[in-house]
Formats: sequence, C-alpha cells, structure tokens
Amino acid sequence: MNKAQTQSDFFIPRLAVIGVGLIGGSLALALREAGAVGEIVGIGRGLENLQKALDLGIVDRITQDAAEGCRDADVVFLATPVRTLADVAAAIIPSLKPGAILTDGGSVKAQVAQEIEPLLRDDVFLVPGHPIAGTEKSGAEAAFATLYQGRRCILTPTKSTDQEALLFIQRMWATVGSEVVLMDVTKHDRVLAAISHLPHMVAYSLVNAVGSYDRYEENILEYSAGGFRDFTRIASSDPTMWRDIALTNRDALIEMMERFERFFGELKEDVRQGDDGKLFDFFQRSKQMRDEIL
Amino acid sequence: MNKAQTQSDFFIPRLAVIGVGLIGGSLALALREAGAVGEIVGIGRGLENLQKALDLGIVDRITQDAAEGCRDADVVFLATPVRTLADVAAAIIPSLKPGAILTDGGSVKAQVAQEIEPLLRDDVFLVPGHPIAGTEKSGAEAAFATLYQGRRCILTPTKSTDQEALLFIQRMWATVGSEVVLMDVTKHDRVLAAISHLPHMVAYSLVNAVGSYDRYEENILEYSAGGFRDFTRIASSDPTMWRDIALTNRDALIEMMERFERFFGELKEDVRQGDDGKLFDFFQRSKQMRDEIL
Repeated sequence: MNKAQTQSDFFIPRLAVIGVGLIGGSLALALREAGAVGEIVGIGRGLENLQKALDLGIVDRITQDAAEGCRDADVVFLATPVRTLADVAAAIIPSLKPGAILTDGGSVKAQVAQEIEPLLRDDVFLVPGHPIAGTEKSGAEAAFATLYQGRRCILTPTKSTDQEALLFIQRMWATVGSEVVLMDVTKHDRVLAAISHLPHMVAYSLVNAVGSYDRYEENILEYSAGGFRDFTRIASSDPTMWRDIALTNRDALIEMMERFERFFGELKEDVRQGDDGKLFDFFQRSKQMRDEIL
Repeated sequence: MNKAQTQSDFFIPRLAVIGVGLIGGSLALALREAGAVGEIVGIGRGLENLQKALDLGIVDRITQDAAEGCRDADVVFLATPVRTLADVAAAIIPSLKPGAILTDGGSVKAQVAQEIEPLLRDDVFLVPGHPIAGTEKSGAEAAFATLYQGRRCILTPTKSTDQEALLFIQRMWATVGSEVVLMDVTKHDRVLAAISHLPHMVAYSLVNAVGSYDRYEENILEYSAGGFRDFTRIASSDPTMWRDIALTNRDALIEMMERFERFFGELKEDVRQGDDGKLFDFFQRSKQMRDEIL
C-alpha cells in the first residue's frame, strides 16, 4: 500500500481525544487537515483549556465527562500524563462501543500496558503508542498540525494486541506523516530513557545547579548565550509530566543516569589530571556521534 | 557618549586578526559593516582557511607570518584557541608598533592575563576580553557580521591595564552591537565555567553515554527527536578548543562539575525513592529559572 492510498482510504468517523494539549491537539489538527476524521470530541479536566481547543477549531465539541465523550468514539486517543492513563482507561472502557480502539501517546509503555490490559473488554482494543515528537510547550495553544510530520511513532504491541487494531493505528500515524516503528515494550522504555528521559534529567539538574550558584549575588544565567539557552530549553518542560515519566520508567532511567554519571565522572577525572589526549578523544568521539544525527 | 556618536567616531586604521574563524572573522565582518576599520590583515597557520577568508571578503590580505602581519596594526585581535594565545603574543609583541593594542576573545581569562602581561612592552597594551557569543560551527565560513549584536562582551582589565586602551576596546565592541561588561578576572572564569564550560562537559558526556549504548546493536540516536538534537548541539563544538578551555580553566570547571554532580545525584536519589513532591519541586524550580531567561 503506498502513502497516497493510505491517506485517501483512511478515515475515523468519530475520534475522542482525552487531554487536548500539544500531543492530543496536534493529532486532532493533523487528522483533520488530512481529511481523515469526522467528528472530534475533546475531553479533559480543565474547562479553560477545553474551551480554548474548541475556539481554536482543534475539536468539534468538548466535555469534562470522559465516559460520555467516548461513548460513540471509534478511536480514543489518550494524551494525559502517563500516570493518569490507567485511571482514565478504567473510567471509559465500560461505556465504549464494541470495536472501539484505545491508543495513547504516553512516553513510557511497560507500566501502561500492564495496567490497562487487565481492564479491557473482549470487544475493545488497546494499541500502546508513542509519537517521538514534542516541544517544551504545553496546552491546546501549543498544538500544530505538522508536529508529527517526518517524525517516528513507536507502537509497542504486546502478545495480546489485536492485529487489525494495530494495523489501523499504524495507518493513523502514517496519515499524519509519521514513520511507524514497531518495538518491544522493554526496548522502547530503555531507548526512551536514553534519548529522552535522561537528557531531561540532565537539563533540569544543570539549570538548577547553575541557576542557584549565588557566589556573586546576581543571576549569572543573565550572562548565558545561545548555546546555554538551546541546551536548556527542555528544562522548561512541564514538571508534572516529567515527574510522572521519571516515576513510571524508574528502573530504566536509573540505569541510564548511572551510565551518564560514569561518563561524566571519567571526563572530570581527565580534566583533573589535565590529560590532553583523553580529553581530545572524549570530545572528538562525541562530536562525531552528534554530527551523524545532525 | 551615545551609540550613534560611538559608531561614527570609532575607527581602526589597521586591524590584524589572528585566527580568522567564527570569532575573529565575525569581528572583522562586523567592523567592516560598521565602516569602523581600514585594512584588515588575516593571520593564521592554515592557508586553506586564510584563502577562504580572503575569498569571502572577510580580510583584505593574508599571511602565515604573524609578526609580519601585525607590524603596522593599531589593534591585534587574538582569536586562536586559548592555550596558544601566550605563544602567539610572544611571537608578535617585539614587532608591534608603539601604541598598538592587543586584545583577545579567549573563553578563559586568568591564565591568559598571567601569561601575556609579563611579555608586554611599555608601549604596547593588553585588554583581555571575551565576547559571549558563538555557535557550534568553526572556521572562516562560519563567520557572520551580526554574531555580536545584542550579545554581552566581557572585558577583564587587570590593575596594569591601560585605561585609554580599555576605553578604545570598549568602543570597538559597542560598535559591533555588543553590551560591554567589565568583570574581575576570577569572577569571569567562574561564571563562564558555570554557564558555558560546564554545559559543554555535560553535553559531551551525554552524547558519549547515549551514543555508545549498544544493548540493541543499533544506533539509538536515530530515534532522537528535536529536543535531543537541540540539547546536544553544543557537543558538536570544536574538540581542540574545548580541550584547551577545560585545561585552562581547570579549577573553576572542576568546582562546577562537582556542583552539578551533587544536583544530579540528588535527583537520582529522588527518582530511586519515588519521591513525588521532591521531583515535582526540582523540575518546577528549574523550569522557573529557565523561563526567566527565555
């Protein structure tokens, strides 16, 4: 099946998005732009954000009652913080119509699959997913239709995942321009700990360490130039979301944090020893790896 | 004196730039664009880069002989890696004309001042400086005229710095659009260790730790999205330059690396303990500090 066919064939009569922020709102906008969706229901706890999503044309109607909002949905996209996903799933599953597909955008997958699968009915399907895209912004206003274009979306089916439902969600992500990758759940959580969760922990720590350096009784961050600003942008990300990710992917994250500590400690030792050759090699190796993904 | 006056009054009949890369080349371009310079001599070891600087119109003539190239210069801008500055200064000082001002763009100031000041003649002046600007790119091709606009430039005069020479270099940086700040040398080196040198060590370590994670026999950096790419851009910086900075500002850098390790270790402990409140506070504090400098 080529991409043109995928896009023209694919259609979701009714989509419910729970959590209409950057991730949920952008999927809604992208599917709408592709002509691949009928009605979109926006569901959330905060009425102000929902109203904004409605005003911005991201969703067609809004409700704070998740079970009611999902009742007639063909696809429900869960885009709330990772630790809330199981509770939200528990609240809506009894009222879903037969054949409904539940999918999500959570950054951690093992715990989510473990918690939601036992709640499923025989005629309601779960496809755990994770689009690798985002910015440091949050809320409906941050959403935009091209967020997923050219990005990878990782789906992590388990042995109980329905194959037709999986294929349908693969097509959904292809329709919004993503490259879909299937991955084992444990591998997903370790890879994400490495390329996303660890960097956030590093950025948060760096800003805290530097921003609280008060030897000179002035905010030395004022002196920082573009490099520091780019480097620490992800430390502006939503604290609740990152608290939840850190707690939900704890083991993989601790493993990566310890790995980083070893590398950083080795570099510190090379600086202390004044080891020209080792320092150059360390920086050179890093530059080469970084330049490969430019 | 207002800015318009500064710009129209200020003129350097002959400027020599040693090291025509991002930093040196951008100063040349900016002074030329401001109509504040006569002839610009480009000096360096690599003929290919010099030829490029000439072809790009960054400099008016080129030479690999530093003493010859600086002979008639009113201002010499040293823009070679930090650890080479004293050797370069030693090579050119005997042939400088009386009244010449030597200034630099080095990222570390204490060691430079200590090493160069004993080499000075009574009629040749040194003004140590550091423009807080840059990108991860290097070489003449990376230079652009607006690099310094709206950026701070820190000058670190010592008690032996000539006041007229200092004033002249202040006006030079103001002419290219920088906000000039005078700072104690030791403070400069500690502040830069915090806002620039530490972040580079962190970025280099992060890319090495993640890029060499080979549990899955594939380059997991391929999965990284915009956040990781932005976050690690500075790990593409020139290895030689950063080796030299790390070695030249060793004590301040080790102090900041240890400070970072304490914060990171504390965060790791909070993740391990699963401490909701502490994690949220840590991320929230960082987000607030980061958002203040957005």
